[in-house]
Amino acid sequence: MNIIEIISKKRDKKRLSKEEIEYFIKGYTKGEITDYQAAALVMAIYINGMDYEEIKDLTLAMANSGETLDLSDISKTIIDKHSSGGVGDKITLIVMPIIASFGIPVAKMSGRGLGITGGTIDKLESIPGYRTDISLEEFKNNIKEIGISLIGQTKDLAPADKKIYALRDTIACTDNIPLIASSIMSKKIAAGANKLVLEVTCGSGAFMKNQEEAEELSTLMKKIGELAGIETVCVITNMDEPIGKAVGNSLEIEEAVQALKGKMQEDVKQVVLTIASYILKLAGYGNDLEENKRKVLEKIQSGEAYEKFTQLVEKQYGDVEYLNNIKKAKYIVPVRNEKSGYITKLNAEQIGKASLELGAGRMKKEDEIDHTVGIILEKKIGSKVDAGETIAYIHSNKENIDEVKQKILSAYKIDAEKPEEYKHILNII
Amino acid sequence: MNIIEIISKKRDKKRLSKEEIEYFIKGYTKGEITDYQAAALVMAIYINGMDYEEIKDLTLAMANSGETLDLSDISKTIIDKHSSGGVGDKITLIVMPIIASFGIPVAKMSGRGLGITGGTIDKLESIPGYRTDISLEEFKNNIKEIGISLIGQTKDLAPADKKIYALRDTIACTDNIPLIASSIMSKKIAAGANKLVLEVTCGSGAFMKNQEEAEELSTLMKKIGELAGIETVCVITNMDEPIGKAVGNSLEIEEAVQALKGKMQEDVKQVVLTIASYILKLAGYGNDLEENKRKVLEKIQSGEAYEKFTQLVEKQYGDVEYLNNIKKAKYIVPVRNEKSGYITKLNAEQIGKASLELGAGRMKKEDEIDHTVGIILEKKIGSKVDAGETIAYIHSNKENIDEVKQKILSAYKIDAEKPEEYKHILNII
Repeated sequence: MNIIEIISKKRDKKRLSKEEIEYFIKGYTKGEITDYQAAALVMAIYINGMDYEEIKDLTLAMANSGETLDLSDISKTIIDKHSSGGVGDKITLIVMPIIASFGIPVAKMSGRGLGITGGTIDKLESIPGYRTDISLEEFKNNIKEIGISLIGQTKDLAPADKKIYALRDTIACTDNIPLIASSIMSKKIAAGANKLVLEVTCGSGAFMKNQEEAEELSTLMKKIGELAGIETVCVITNMDEPIGKAVGNSLEIEEAVQALKGKMQEDVKQVVLTIASYILKLAGYGNDLEENKRKVLEKIQSGEAYEKFTQLVEKQYGDVEYLNNIKKAKYIVPVRNEKSGYITKLNAEQIGKASLELGAGRMKKEDEIDHTVGIILEKKIGSKVDAGETIAYIHSNKENIDEVKQKILSAYKIDAEKPEEYKHILNII
Repeated sequence: MNIIEIISKKRDKKRLSKEEIEYFIKGYTKGEITDYQAAALVMAIYINGMDYEEIKDLTLAMANSGETLDLSDISKTIIDKHSSGGVGDKITLIVMPIIASFGIPVAKMSGRGLGITGGTIDKLESIPGYRTDISLEEFKNNIKEIGISLIGQTKDLAPADKKIYALRDTIACTDNIPLIASSIMSKKIAAGANKLVLEVTCGSGAFMKNQEEAEELSTLMKKIGELAGIETVCVITNMDEPIGKAVGNSLEIEEAVQALKGKMQEDVKQVVLTIASYILKLAGYGNDLEENKRKVLEKIQSGEAYEKFTQLVEKQYGDVEYLNNIKKAKYIVPVRNEKSGYITKLNAEQIGKASLELGAGRMKKEDEIDHTVGIILEKKIGSKVDAGETIAYIHSNKENIDEVKQKILSAYKIDAEKPEEYKHILNII
């Protein structure tokens, strides 16, 4: 077996065996197979495709390319939740403490934001002191003690995925469903999950722009999960407009805190309840989803969910007091619309870009984030507005924000007719 | 314009513009585009193809990626001859002095051998003192003074082709006709040719294994030539058995010397006369090919062709006296066949491998060559042999040559029936 033979096979649209895929992943991880050989193979995979079996083998080979987390001493059932990323997506921050408050262990590794999509880790780091880089030992200890830990991805987990992911970005091979699916699933498998709820975002503010693609990705991930023995549910959420009101790191922490205290926006509520109810089902807490949703609301109303969140913050060295008095940016500027009517569109990508311009996100991996800046969306799709009404607030540390204002205004579309009802959950697979 | 957009287009089977191809070639030559990006693009080209216009643009961009030779002050018509390589292929060494003896300027750059195919430069270097690395100034001066110079390819000529060629070797993208065609043509264009005769070898001892592929490559190179304003003729030669008797560097010099003195094997004669007659036609020395062949034979009989060869050797610091007394290897061992009958096959690839084993060629670029070793084929396809007759001689500097002998014997196939006549020239395109 050698890499040139493996490349030739995929180049000629033949299927690769498990052994060949493992040979590639091992060799590339060790650096014995070069970046240009990997690039040629990845391009051949992009163009000529892979069947389910190959994608499952690729996923498992990447999952096993480095350290893998064994959480079986904590619980038989390890549930993970993942989002494919979006603008204003703070669902993980709300759902995970709720789940932990049921006594279901939550061992969650999250990523950083890049481009218009934020990252849970950046949001948590806006809380003074919160450490996302604790050791794996401490991570496991926290789960044993308080039932939850939320950290950044360690660099030793699925290193092959990291290398291939970075490579794909430079060779125009990012938007490929088999490669996206295997990348997501490999990380979850390496992190020790055996049951998964995936929030597959879809729309202008997400990677998957249309429902068909999101469904294709979901079906594929479910299939990989099935072949790898991991029960998987995909919740396809609508990311045409941002989720919730807040876009920006500490602003989203504020929104999550309010949500955990019972004040949830309608869209956030629907997504949180849906995802949480499926997690409860997978964890064996009941098959009746409506009943599960009621249980979730109870945990919020009783204060247990928020209590779990404060435990998490404290355990990871964060300042719990800060949650009652979250730092604001220097300038808070209203954005007023000129026309009266109904909001028929609110382009999440545009809002994401406006927030990036304020400094809430990263254009490149090396960029620093300004945690306090962002946007609060006062009006969303379906709202009726009058001319001159405030539709959003900009939270900024710089004075000149004309361009940001223009971007926000151009993200909104206002028409005379009321739009059809905006669906928050598009499908469940 | 950026490389990721260019890669995406070819990935999606779209055509690349001239500007995009030039952007890639310039960036890759300068090192601004990485090997892995080039690998991804080359793989996409391999799988999704290119149209004639794209291949022409790629060829010209590679030709112009470094130094280009301007020979217009020597002659309006600059003719080049190229072989796609084969076992025992000494045609260039015979044809070029003949052409120069007509007063047609010969400015020829040749390559080194790799694998089973020998290189003209290695053969010339078996002549003590002969320098293949003289400066381009000296090269041009020699052409002006004696009408001929024969040197190695300079590293500054078509550097993009060199980089892409080396890359293709490591990513399973060698056997692709558009990439082969543009590679060959770019070097010839950079070397200043405006008329070309290409010897496209075909068969077990060549890169193109069957006539269909050789014809496809020829048609494509002719088309690129046409689009680039270079009149091109492709002579497809049969490389199922080696050309001529000798395989090995100084053994082939010996055969070339004998040929220039008028003692030519039938197959060598046919190929030399065909190629030379087309070169004369392109150079404006007459359209009647049979008449041109007669003129070529006259130049040999008059001694002018050999005289031109000795001038070439002398001018490039080679020992002309050596040509009368070429150094032999330590051991010359006959190979005898066991069966009587007709030779129906003589596998050139096997003979090439046997010669490699003796040390006449390189497995890797860095390998040293033993100039004196090789094989003399006494009997070829169509010959009648008796059991125990000598069919070949091994010229070796090592004593143990059992394996080489076995390889040579296994290259021959002897049957009771006389085979159909072996065609030396398969087609002209």
